[in-house]
Amino acid sequence: MMNDGQGHPKTIVSDASSTFAVKIADRAAVVEFSRGHYQNHFSQERMRELVRILRALDLDDDVGSIVLTGGEGRSFGVGGDFHEVSKFVGGDEVDLWIDNLTELYTTILGISKPVVAAIDGYAIGLGLQIALCCDYRVGSESCQLIMPELKMGIACNFGGYMLETVVGRSVMQAMLFTAEGWNAERALKDHILHEVTSANQIVSRALQCARTIGSWTSSAVQGTRPNINATYLNGIYNLAEQAKRSHRGAFSQGQAQARMEKIISKGCK
Amino acid sequence: MMNDGQGHPKTIVSDASSTFAVKIADRAAVVEFSRGHYQNHFSQERMRELVRILRALDLDDDVGSIVLTGGEGRSFGVGGDFHEVSKFVGGDEVDLWIDNLTELYTTILGISKPVVAAIDGYAIGLGLQIALCCDYRVGSESCQLIMPELKMGIACNFGGYMLETVVGRSVMQAMLFTAEGWNAERALKDHILHEVTSANQIVSRALQCARTIGSWTSSAVQGTRPNINATYLNGIYNLAEQAKRSHRGAFSQGQAQARMEKIISKGCK
Amino acid sequence: MMNDGQGHPKTIVSDASSTFAVKIADRAAVVEFSRGHYQNHFSQERMRELVRILRALDLDDDVGSIVLTGGEGRSFGVGGDFHEVSKFVGGDEVDLWIDNLTELYTTILGISKPVVAAIDGYAIGLGLQIALCCDYRVGSESCQLIMPELKMGIACNFGGYMLETVVGRSVMQAMLFTAEGWNAERALKDHILHEVTSANQIVSRALQCARTIGSWTSSAVQGTRPNINATYLNGIYNLAEQAKRSHRGAFSQGQAQARMEKIISKGCK
Repeated sequence: MMNDGQGHPKTIVSDASSTFAVKIADRAAVVEFSRGHYQNHFSQERMRELVRILRALDLDDDVGSIVLTGGEGRSFGVGGDFHEVSKFVGGDEVDLWIDNLTELYTTILGISKPVVAAIDGYAIGLGLQIALCCDYRVGSESCQLIMPELKMGIACNFGGYMLETVVGRSVMQAMLFTAEGWNAERALKDHILHEVTSANQIVSRALQCARTIGSWTSSAVQGTRPNINATYLNGIYNLAEQAKRSHRGAFSQGQAQARMEKIISKGCK
Repeated sequence: MMNDGQGHPKTIVSDASSTFAVKIADRAAVVEFSRGHYQNHFSQERMRELVRILRALDLDDDVGSIVLTGGEGRSFGVGGDFHEVSKFVGGDEVDLWIDNLTELYTTILGISKPVVAAIDGYAIGLGLQIALCCDYRVGSESCQLIMPELKMGIACNFGGYMLETVVGRSVMQAMLFTAEGWNAERALKDHILHEVTSANQIVSRALQCARTIGSWTSSAVQGTRPNINATYLNGIYNLAEQAKRSHRGAFSQGQAQARMEKIISKGCK
Repeated sequence: MMNDGQGHPKTIVSDASSTFAVKIADRAAVVEFSRGHYQNHFSQERMRELVRILRALDLDDDVGSIVLTGGEGRSFGVGGDFHEVSKFVGGDEVDLWIDNLTELYTTILGISKPVVAAIDGYAIGLGLQIALCCDYRVGSESCQLIMPELKMGIACNFGGYMLETVVGRSVMQAMLFTAEGWNAERALKDHILHEVTSANQIVSRALQCARTIGSWTSSAVQGTRPNINATYLNGIYNLAEQAKRSHRGAFSQGQAQARMEKIISKGCK
């Protein structure tokens, strides 16, 4: 997908252990959640890695805008790593997990450069929350967006706050209290997605948006984005402490883990 | 409607003087605004009674979720009791009324258990505001939602704040400044309602939603709802003092009462 | 258009140098952005003049509601005066401009009487922002709404905040990060406009809305509008200092001015 640019694409992360591939051309960076499971679970190590990549891109003068994508044919993100989360017992490990989540969300919101999400497959829980921190969301015709926390037995404070902030209280209520999946058409109507294209077009379309933004005066773009995100970002920080209490409570009862084990054993798709 | 549950329904309010009927089965409670006028005006005594019922249900471990309904064939609520409000002179009785309203709204928002509204007929002013404190709103095909305060000559501070919080500023502006009725189709499009069904299905559909929520891990649900409602609830408290001043002013001029008397004498439907 | 009223229209601004015409009849005032360029650029002198007119109308007991319009066949407003703004160098003149903008927006939001916008042609940047301070927006079938700041190389803090407040974060993101024009249909769907009519009907339709509001008890209307606008208005004040910093930065680099000069030389339409 980088062949159509005039510049010479540079690949900034070539580390063989990385589960992300980053390519930069024509002032847009594409961060692909590659080399992970095709569903893109987010372990805490992957959260921290994505934070490091975004911070590096924020400092890179060749980058005006960023695309996040699970890649064509792979889900944008189906949530946390169940194998990790299912071992939680309601102690300090919950706080660390919330800290890692908070750092990820506030980094996406806090960098100075706009971020475009290209969403194929599933965006569930944490995956959807990553998308809700982005500035523009392009979905594929077959994508499915779900905020299933309550149904799975875990509190949904970040998800509730982020949905209400981005698409309003009423849509938030419907997503949390039905825990149903939103298909592309419904997500577009409810403004969760900004655009829908065919699956094989989402990355090129997202890249087109990112390059357009990247072509604009950087002082204007970067003098705007942090300001229009400031209230949202502060809300996430304020939520973190409360989320620790809620999640400690839920995980200490063991019901969430039991449900997750069941989902893992059945295979989630 | 409670016959389809597997549990033995229990009726917690059997007091002959009550204007509410409460039935519990399968972790869902249905609170029906029965034995009132079929339009369901809300006198202050009825507001206080509903508050007591909701607090009792919040403490009842058999209840995971609550349905509020005017009952099939009856309006969800057409507002305050005009016979009561039309006697206001702009003094302490206005403050007491605002206190009772505030207590009602903040109780619905503040309990730990989700509340589903099943709306048939009219939801006007206070009636619509009760619905706007709920988590999920199912309307009948023939329901009508109206925020007519300004047209009736009374300030609309609660209504304005609640509509803006739930469905956004633009829809709020349209409802307040046209004072028109929203039919089911428009209310669904504008996200005031989450679902529309036929009138004879609204209670069973709302109950189905409530039972689904009731089947989820209570610590997750109850660890989420108070948090996602906290900002909204605080906004209502902050509004109360301001609303007292606005309403004292409006009622001391006598015009609102004159309009209400006219509506009472014509019959409001 | 004032002929259909029963009262004798009065014209309060007859000053030959004014670029506004104000007529009052049947408790509604129409403020027409006349005698300007047909695109209605807003120089700072025009901002201050509009502020003075609105303050006078707020004190006029014959006025219950106000219509703002560029007039039929003329744009509602295409933004600031490029000839003025293109001379900015990033110093105190930027602060003064922000102060004049802030005064205009907070005056529209802060007066006690509802304001209806009748929008034909373009509403771009500052023009759209004026509309976003109004209570009800009637657009013509051929109107175009655009928030092009980022594309033009200037920060968009007011525009971002105002769009998010009025129509939500998701629509704001789309308008800012695509910088595309919204036609009437899309603007209606996204709740930027409340109604769409044919171009030759917008003023009479807006006037009809304003007269309806004007016929309502003034203590109710005027006891509500300042309250439902208070948070929004305070947000604008808080933004002003931040906007000064952002705009000084953008203008001191000269790129915005270069783009404006280009637009001026090509003719913007």
